[in-house]
Amino acid sequence: MTAPLGALLDAIITRALEEDLAGGDITTDAVVGRDRRALARAIAKAPLVLCGADVFARVFYTVDPGLRVERLVDDGERCAPGTPLLVVEGSARSILLGERTALNFLQRLSGIATLTRAYVDAIPAGTRLRITDTRKTTPGLRALERYAVRVGGAHNHRNDLGSAVLLKDNHIAAAGGVTRAIELARQRAPHTSRIEVEVASLAMLDEALAAGADVVMLDNLSGDELREGVRRASGRALVEVSGGITLDRIPELARLGVDVVSVGALTHSAPAADVSLSLEALGR
Amino acid sequence: MTAPLGALLDAIITRALEEDLAGGDITTDAVVGRDRRALARAIAKAPLVLCGADVFARVFYTVDPGLRVERLVDDGERCAPGTPLLVVEGSARSILLGERTALNFLQRLSGIATLTRAYVDAIPAGTRLRITDTRKTTPGLRALERYAVRVGGAHNHRNDLGSAVLLKDNHIAAAGGVTRAIELARQRAPHTSRIEVEVASLAMLDEALAAGADVVMLDNLSGDELREGVRRASGRALVEVSGGITLDRIPELARLGVDVVSVGALTHSAPAADVSLSLEALGR
Amino acid sequence: MTAPLGALLDAIITRALEEDLAGGDITTDAVVGRDRRALARAIAKAPLVLCGADVFARVFYTVDPGLRVERLVDDGERCAPGTPLLVVEGSARSILLGERTALNFLQRLSGIATLTRAYVDAIPAGTRLRITDTRKTTPGLRALERYAVRVGGAHNHRNDLGSAVLLKDNHIAAAGGVTRAIELARQRAPHTSRIEVEVASLAMLDEALAAGADVVMLDNLSGDELREGVRRASGRALVEVSGGITLDRIPELARLGVDVVSVGALTHSAPAADVSLSLEALGR
Amino acid sequence: MTAPLGALLDAIITRALEEDLAGGDITTDAVVGRDRRALARAIAKAPLVLCGADVFARVFYTVDPGLRVERLVDDGERCAPGTPLLVVEGSARSILLGERTALNFLQRLSGIATLTRAYVDAIPAGTRLRITDTRKTTPGLRALERYAVRVGGAHNHRNDLGSAVLLKDNHIAAAGGVTRAIELARQRAPHTSRIEVEVASLAMLDEALAAGADVVMLDNLSGDELREGVRRASGRALVEVSGGITLDRIPELARLGVDVVSVGALTHSAPAADVSLSLEALGR
Amino acid sequence: MTAPLGALLDAIITRALEEDLAGGDITTDAVVGRDRRALARAIAKAPLVLCGADVFARVFYTVDPGLRVERLVDDGERCAPGTPLLVVEGSARSILLGERTALNFLQRLSGIATLTRAYVDAIPAGTRLRITDTRKTTPGLRALERYAVRVGGAHNHRNDLGSAVLLKDNHIAAAGGVTRAIELARQRAPHTSRIEVEVASLAMLDEALAAGADVVMLDNLSGDELREGVRRASGRALVEVSGGITLDRIPELARLGVDVVSVGALTHSAPAADVSLSLEALGR
Amino acid sequence: MTAPLGALLDAIITRALEEDLAGGDITTDAVVGRDRRALARAIAKAPLVLCGADVFARVFYTVDPGLRVERLVDDGERCAPGTPLLVVEGSARSILLGERTALNFLQRLSGIATLTRAYVDAIPAGTRLRITDTRKTTPGLRALERYAVRVGGAHNHRNDLGSAVLLKDNHIAAAGGVTRAIELARQRAPHTSRIEVEVASLAMLDEALAAGADVVMLDNLSGDELREGVRRASGRALVEVSGGITLDRIPELARLGVDVVSVGALTHSAPAADVSLSLEALGR
Repeated sequence: MTAPLGALLDAIITRALEEDLAGGDITTDAVVGRDRRALARAIAKAPLVLCGADVFARVFYTVDPGLRVERLVDDGERCAPGTPLLVVEGSARSILLGERTALNFLQRLSGIATLTRAYVDAIPAGTRLRITDTRKTTPGLRALERYAVRVGGAHNHRNDLGSAVLLKDNHIAAAGGVTRAIELARQRAPHTSRIEVEVASLAMLDEALAAGADVVMLDNLSGDELREGVRRASGRALVEVSGGITLDRIPELARLGVDVVSVGALTHSAPAADVSLSLEALGR
Repeated sequence: MTAPLGALLDAIITRALEEDLAGGDITTDAVVGRDRRALARAIAKAPLVLCGADVFARVFYTVDPGLRVERLVDDGERCAPGTPLLVVEGSARSILLGERTALNFLQRLSGIATLTRAYVDAIPAGTRLRITDTRKTTPGLRALERYAVRVGGAHNHRNDLGSAVLLKDNHIAAAGGVTRAIELARQRAPHTSRIEVEVASLAMLDEALAAGADVVMLDNLSGDELREGVRRASGRALVEVSGGITLDRIPELARLGVDVVSVGALTHSAPAADVSLSLEALGR
Repeated sequence: MTAPLGALLDAIITRALEEDLAGGDITTDAVVGRDRRALARAIAKAPLVLCGADVFARVFYTVDPGLRVERLVDDGERCAPGTPLLVVEGSARSILLGERTALNFLQRLSGIATLTRAYVDAIPAGTRLRITDTRKTTPGLRALERYAVRVGGAHNHRNDLGSAVLLKDNHIAAAGGVTRAIELARQRAPHTSRIEVEVASLAMLDEALAAGADVVMLDNLSGDELREGVRRASGRALVEVSGGITLDRIPELARLGVDVVSVGALTHSAPAADVSLSLEALGR
Repeated sequence: MTAPLGALLDAIITRALEEDLAGGDITTDAVVGRDRRALARAIAKAPLVLCGADVFARVFYTVDPGLRVERLVDDGERCAPGTPLLVVEGSARSILLGERTALNFLQRLSGIATLTRAYVDAIPAGTRLRITDTRKTTPGLRALERYAVRVGGAHNHRNDLGSAVLLKDNHIAAAGGVTRAIELARQRAPHTSRIEVEVASLAMLDEALAAGADVVMLDNLSGDELREGVRRASGRALVEVSGGITLDRIPELARLGVDVVSVGALTHSAPAADVSLSLEALGR
Repeated sequence: MTAPLGALLDAIITRALEEDLAGGDITTDAVVGRDRRALARAIAKAPLVLCGADVFARVFYTVDPGLRVERLVDDGERCAPGTPLLVVEGSARSILLGERTALNFLQRLSGIATLTRAYVDAIPAGTRLRITDTRKTTPGLRALERYAVRVGGAHNHRNDLGSAVLLKDNHIAAAGGVTRAIELARQRAPHTSRIEVEVASLAMLDEALAAGADVVMLDNLSGDELREGVRRASGRALVEVSGGITLDRIPELARLGVDVVSVGALTHSAPAADVSLSLEALGR
Repeated sequence: MTAPLGALLDAIITRALEEDLAGGDITTDAVVGRDRRALARAIAKAPLVLCGADVFARVFYTVDPGLRVERLVDDGERCAPGTPLLVVEGSARSILLGERTALNFLQRLSGIATLTRAYVDAIPAGTRLRITDTRKTTPGLRALERYAVRVGGAHNHRNDLGSAVLLKDNHIAAAGGVTRAIELARQRAPHTSRIEVEVASLAMLDEALAAGADVVMLDNLSGDELREGVRRASGRALVEVSGGITLDRIPELARLGVDVVSVGALTHSAPAADVSLSLEALGR
């Protein structure tokens, strides 16, 4: 679970700090003395899976290289309410300046990791199901959100439109059919990519399998049709199911033998984790 | 409800497109002919308040200035499932390239506007309650998310740490008490800012009112204490209540005479609105 | 007097260095040996109030992290001609590369602080007048210039158009009158902002006060009318005077009881402070 | 007098707009209706030489491509107080949003052009003196400020440290003497650059001339010594005089036969030109 | 062969123009009148395959939106010496400003397309060999250079380290063997990626095939060993050969049944195509 | 031979890393343990002149500040095949992430330095010929490529269009003749620039010399005409020859007395130097 390169996050960290601090902090500037020091603890207020300790620390170091951030918990650990997660120590002014921005990152990423973990926990033992994210990420935060999904225990789908072939209905229509679309992709796309095809019926599925699709995405198949689809594809292609899959359907899909369930909600609808920063003055 | 300046969004739009398209679109490139044209409709799949039509269009224009985007619905309108929201017409390739990025913006902003509208709808007629956002916004998207809150019918709180004074517990502790903190803020902060003070007890409230606070934020007061707090502040300062306020508490707070309820969830935990893009080939 | 976040200055520092050094330094490259070391002193050539030591140092550290910058004087101190202000030590090449850029920042900021201090010094003891800047700042340097104004002993006005309400003639005309404009602002603008109104006559002033303006800006009132305006507003709203106010009028305005005088010249017309950098070779 | 490339100004224009508008315009948003149109005139309030019409227009086009900007006066023209300079027409909101930023550019550039013109006007007819700027420009605005100097009728000195060789005292000391410094520069620097040497005495001047300097900069020579220096250099090298040269000394230096006087004040201390924007409502 | 999104090229186009024009064009400014118009033809001086017409045009449009660029030849066409490729018409100054930057892009991209075409032309009819690029691209120009490879008739390899799995010796050593490395990659990497393994011996090849590698890269196999390797892999995995493959070896490798030859030289060592711009004055 | 400022390279380094790593490294992430350490040696695979050690190191430090890079060879040294050039030590993951990007820079710069050295070595002893680059550099890499030319032992020509006057045929045509063009340039361009004129015949040469050109560029003169041209210019102006000059012509041109030969191929057509990175595991 490698985190995104810190240096590649600096643009978004700087932008976030500018959103909050381009005009300074008129409250802190007025009332908090320059020499005052403090210690602040980030504390979980609800159960969560921590994610984003690196970026939390990097925000504070960007605000003031003289701050010291210590991690009490690693990314990926489950934390009960009340758990202290990180400690920041140094200039009280600097801590107050970075507080909101650092928390905004940490809460969003931990929120994604926490929701992801719930999906992963729903996979019955002995099945091979893999939960993945989608490209439905927050503009500007894709690398971080994909990391949060890995921290939550799930896998990533393709990173972007240049990473892998996924033939959807519009591509198939443009190509003039499933077989032709697969042929074209095989001829033209990089040989390093599997070829995945979204199918909306058993007939399309059969055509995709016959044409050599590596992965089939079953879309809008349900009940017996879904079961039959998984049976037909089994051993010939990986089977992915997508489209508004809720947590409660995970066990059933895993037991059917589905290989992959991709869940947009992991990144587009995860509620923020509840974390607060509690300061304690250290005098000068 | 002015939208953020388009030109100031270009950095985040470009970055979002780079996240998805820096390596090209190997699927579309392989199977969709250069001259193929299409028409695509963004359609609500669930009830929503639309927000982000401008940025949706700007994404497509950035991908290809030759595309044409038409709005069927204005930002702020409530839409039933099945409502067509926008139409994009032009090169099929260009539409497929911009689809995910445009939807990622539209779904997030409409999600915020939709949740916000629910809060606003909960305000009983005849009360003066105002719902506001907080600074708990997505890094990089503050201006857009604050706009979505306005589109949803609520108000914005201060934009950033440089816009207005808000004295919290740490500031008060650093200053050596409520009265001193208010004095310092009045002496040093811009005269254009009101002075808001977060108070955790009736005693602190009395001190803040005596020292001339313009706005008091009641934190963790509940039941009789909250009622008494609102009564004492009434006519002397604006009263804001904050901290995990759920939708069901809005009517009660409004009827108590609270002026402002600020809700972090509007921006940090709104689920994405469900919108899909449906393409129709136009031939060449 | 908190300085702007160093990390938020890096874009403008890098750009300034690129303006001077994108093509290298062909003189230094030709004649100054790689191993040569030097010590350079920034020296005041005329009386000044120092401002910008941080950014001066940051320019040199950006050029070469191996340089050492020591401050002999703090921002805000008055310095007589001949006063050594800062010392830079290290590679002679690196010092020559950063010299002009570092001085360009230091001279501009010290120029602003010096002019500001003259205005502040003109305030008679026992009056409550506050001098502020305006939004007439150099494009790209607002945060630094507002800091220089604070260093000079004055206050900042609102940072930007999103920080506070200031109703000018065009806004009032668009709203259809002073009362209506104030009502609209109160209903729609963030509750954290005071409402300031620019008034051009005693009649407008009366209407603004009646409608509850928090601050009134007297524009083009003079003599008896100005005196009467201040009298009427006193105790009901803060009184700001603006518009080409020269240094010699400060005592009179302060004695009238004016609360705020905002002076565009502090940032748009301050002459650069005279500072030079004197090098001394250290051998290798 | 070619203006800097518009596209190369977009970064600084966008940054300037972000400084003012990242948090929106809460006043205009509250009181000016979306459909209201207006016409605004930029008017000279004091005598000035106009500079910056292009960038003024580009700011407004960046805010809103639907605005129309018309120029009534060309860059370089002298304008009496009351002269209308430019007209902007379109959405009243958009005009109010761009007003301050557009004026900040226009006033600074016109201020430089106006001061420069005063220096140029002081050159007696029949002399060959050329006034130039220096590298003492505002960080981030060098290209614009050098353009303003040309618009004011003066010339540019070298653009940056990579454009031309200028050997100052520190370079000469590092090289071990004037002759050696010139030799090194001739051997190593691009053959497209003249070699200019700063000299502080007649002895140094003689050495520089003997070693083949193309341009000599007389520093701190005055009275008879200066006269003698110019005489000796005449016909052998161009003669530049620099260092705090005030307007009143221009005629004397020109008559002495000096070729170039470089004036840092043109860019670092020019007061802003006085220009205001006057709006007129056009109804909807 | 979709070109990279124009909007995503703007950063590199702007940077290239800044490299050449940040200090203006002092020659053109001095001698070419503002109103002078010209017509310029880009002409092939040696045989080439054209690539980069879009970016050539975009450079000129960035310099001056009033220029008109017409293409006489499409990307991918072979051109004999003397062939006119593109025509630019408009302000003579603007053409001279953009000339070098536009040619620098065009010559590099056409150079890559021309070299690539030579490799593709060397593939014997009736074989299935595919030539691909590598990640050995010019920093900052990857998207453009990969496009030039496609224009030359070859294919792209994976775009970046996030697009596909390629297990090299160091990965295999770190994993503890070929089989374990493939297992780990299958468990952890996105299911959309094929798994490619670099093998240095027939034994490693056998292990990779047994463990289910999708693609094998034969490294340093030659003669009989290479022939045997291709035979063993045939029908079980795609076979890629890499590492300093020169043009003359292409026919032999194709006839052996190799599927892919990846050639770093396409992007890291292609000589620039010889193109010049010839101006013709149009008067005013 | 000062290298470009490291801080000014960060934008291009970050962009290069984003090209390769925006989607992470799915191979390394899957198979290389977080705690594994390694030592990597960059080794010359063919004879080369090293260039770019600084930027190679900076890439790795940007990836991971915990890496340690040691230089075994200085920029400018000739290295035989097999020579170890640099050593990187630290996290195996970090080394694998930065490998390709660091090598892409190093190979290109060393390629330029190596080709340049070949030209410089061809200059016969006792002649005064200087080899220079041109503005035909890779977009975005000009500063680095010009540095590589210096490292190779050659000189730089003007950096950009703002550094020096070079009158080409189009300028001369626009001005209405050689004499007029030189006059205009002398009147208007910075006095720090020499005036260079491209001449296509002996007649033009005579006119340029008579009008006082500082440098003449002989274009398309050959044989006797070239010899005569050099003779006529000798002692009156520097003589530059340009236009597709190949290595074998250098001795002849040097012996003719030519001062400068500018060679576009140094930067636009140098093949990459052959360098590989060899890793050795260090255990944890």
